[in-house]
Amino acid sequence: MTSQPSQVRLVAYPSGIPGDDVWKITHDSPPELGDGEIEVDVQLISIDPGMKGWATPMRSYIEPVALGDVMRAFGIGPVVRSASNFFSEGDVVSGFTGVQTRAVVDSRSMRPIDMALGPIEHHMSVLGMTGFTGYFGMLDLGRPEASDTVVVSAASGAVGSVAAQIAKRQGARVVGIAGGPAKCAYLLDELGLDAAIDYKSTTQSVVEGLRDAAPGGVDVYFDNVGGEILGAVLGHINRHARIVLCGGISQYGDMANATGPDNYLQLITKSGRMMGFTMLDYLHRIPEAVADLAEWAADGSVKHRQHIIDGIENFPEGFRMLFRGENQGKLLLRP
Amino acid sequence: MTSQPSQVRLVAYPSGIPGDDVWKITHDSPPELGDGEIEVDVQLISIDPGMKGWATPMRSYIEPVALGDVMRAFGIGPVVRSASNFFSEGDVVSGFTGVQTRAVVDSRSMRPIDMALGPIEHHMSVLGMTGFTGYFGMLDLGRPEASDTVVVSAASGAVGSVAAQIAKRQGARVVGIAGGPAKCAYLLDELGLDAAIDYKSTTQSVVEGLRDAAPGGVDVYFDNVGGEILGAVLGHINRHARIVLCGGISQYGDMANATGPDNYLQLITKSGRMMGFTMLDYLHRIPEAVADLAEWAADGSVKHRQHIIDGIENFPEGFRMLFRGENQGKLLLRP
Repeated sequence: MTSQPSQVRLVAYPSGIPGDDVWKITHDSPPELGDGEIEVDVQLISIDPGMKGWATPMRSYIEPVALGDVMRAFGIGPVVRSASNFFSEGDVVSGFTGVQTRAVVDSRSMRPIDMALGPIEHHMSVLGMTGFTGYFGMLDLGRPEASDTVVVSAASGAVGSVAAQIAKRQGARVVGIAGGPAKCAYLLDELGLDAAIDYKSTTQSVVEGLRDAAPGGVDVYFDNVGGEILGAVLGHINRHARIVLCGGISQYGDMANATGPDNYLQLITKSGRMMGFTMLDYLHRIPEAVADLAEWAADGSVKHRQHIIDGIENFPEGFRMLFRGENQGKLLLRP
Repeated sequence: MTSQPSQVRLVAYPSGIPGDDVWKITHDSPPELGDGEIEVDVQLISIDPGMKGWATPMRSYIEPVALGDVMRAFGIGPVVRSASNFFSEGDVVSGFTGVQTRAVVDSRSMRPIDMALGPIEHHMSVLGMTGFTGYFGMLDLGRPEASDTVVVSAASGAVGSVAAQIAKRQGARVVGIAGGPAKCAYLLDELGLDAAIDYKSTTQSVVEGLRDAAPGGVDVYFDNVGGEILGAVLGHINRHARIVLCGGISQYGDMANATGPDNYLQLITKSGRMMGFTMLDYLHRIPEAVADLAEWAADGSVKHRQHIIDGIENFPEGFRMLFRGENQGKLLLRP
């Protein structure tokens, strides 16, 4: 909403949940366009748990953000200047724009957006990376069948809700895990899942919840959280269970002291498999996901919602909301 | 070596490594044969880490041994009486005989042994369940390619040595982990592995050993031990690594306090997979393994050795030897 260009830069690597002090807002003018580059008027920025990993001084599947650089983030918006043959002014593109109002990027790193498929916020949610992550993780790795019981953690979240609803579409019994009665009601009433487990409940543990909601055991587990919930589900798996590791948000706050799932030996006795992935594995297959998810969003079988925060200066607090589980739907920043 | 029939019975569930007090030796006569049953003169009994799981009052992939029952074990020997159409006196069979000198068993649960393929102890080692476990775990789950670096823990053991040598046959670079200089020398000098890491070394940690022996990272890890070694290898995996979970002997002593691999989130950043299995998954494919392993044992590309203990009364101490890593080769009991 600011008229001058603004950037959120990473100036220190956070040790836990990032405080305000690791960020600095600058107001530099966008650089001149190099050959093949475009300038994007960033209209929405995605705030994702995985950004915690990018702000860690350790290579994971991608280089960390260097101190002083604009924080890495997915963004979307129209091209306002182009020195590329691929895009013209007015084309809407998505990719790594960073947390800033104007981004000058290599056009080959950006994906064209078909705005006929839905409003711009859908392309940063169900038709964006989080939707694709739920789609490939569930269909390509989880591979639920109609006779299966599927459990999804963070099931009201941007990735989990897509994964859970796709498992429902496949005919499976789907149990969602989420924090608090409001999110659990959303799973049952809006998403139509078969059961919901409130991991914050003081009257029932997750283990007890699983015993009630998945009496026949768990065939597929789509994990966004790690920690104790992963351990509880591993204690409840069926033979040949598939555990899809999508994220471990419970561990991201203090990654140096991450704890592994005590129950991992269940993978031997149950001949189970635990499979990690990132969207890097599936970038070449995004068009498949867009086609299916656009159809499923349109016919109502994959519902979705967005939680939009206004003002680039609210990025630091928005990022912390994620770790407190306060957002309802895909968290986006309108800078 | 005793002339009277003898049985080792489980009379208490051990909480850690089993002491003498959980076993009782009896001298009951074998029962009459029921329809379809055979009596086997048990000549060799396999002592395996997995037996710890069977002596735990909790169902895993198989029912626990009931208190008072003969301890479950694989055994081999000739049929001495038959009430079955499948086997005649003199046929050599293998299967669950239990820790006893004479076993009356359902003939359908026993596998016929082709004694032309090698001496009887080979059929309880490289041509028995441990050989098959290394074979299917490495070839069906690990799937090493010539460009891969493969790490095997307990690599001088009955399962690990077969797994490691099969990976060598596939052309991979193979690093074995074992305890002590003698076992490491065996890996290099006898089995021809490319490097050995002594996990008991006081001068080099396993992490340092991996850095030296697998500078390009690990593509396949065949794990027999769990615990810290599994964590160390996970910290060193390459993209699309396959972790084959075969056992977790470091955890078996105190399963109530098992610890999971802290580094499991590496499976996400590296798009790795961790796959557990037991031979239950491959019983129908045993003939394939027998055919290949008999050929590879004969041509010397899969070497093997047996460590035979005499006297059924030495079973309790023999079982403890396994957990102390004192046996050299497949541990067998000649009752």
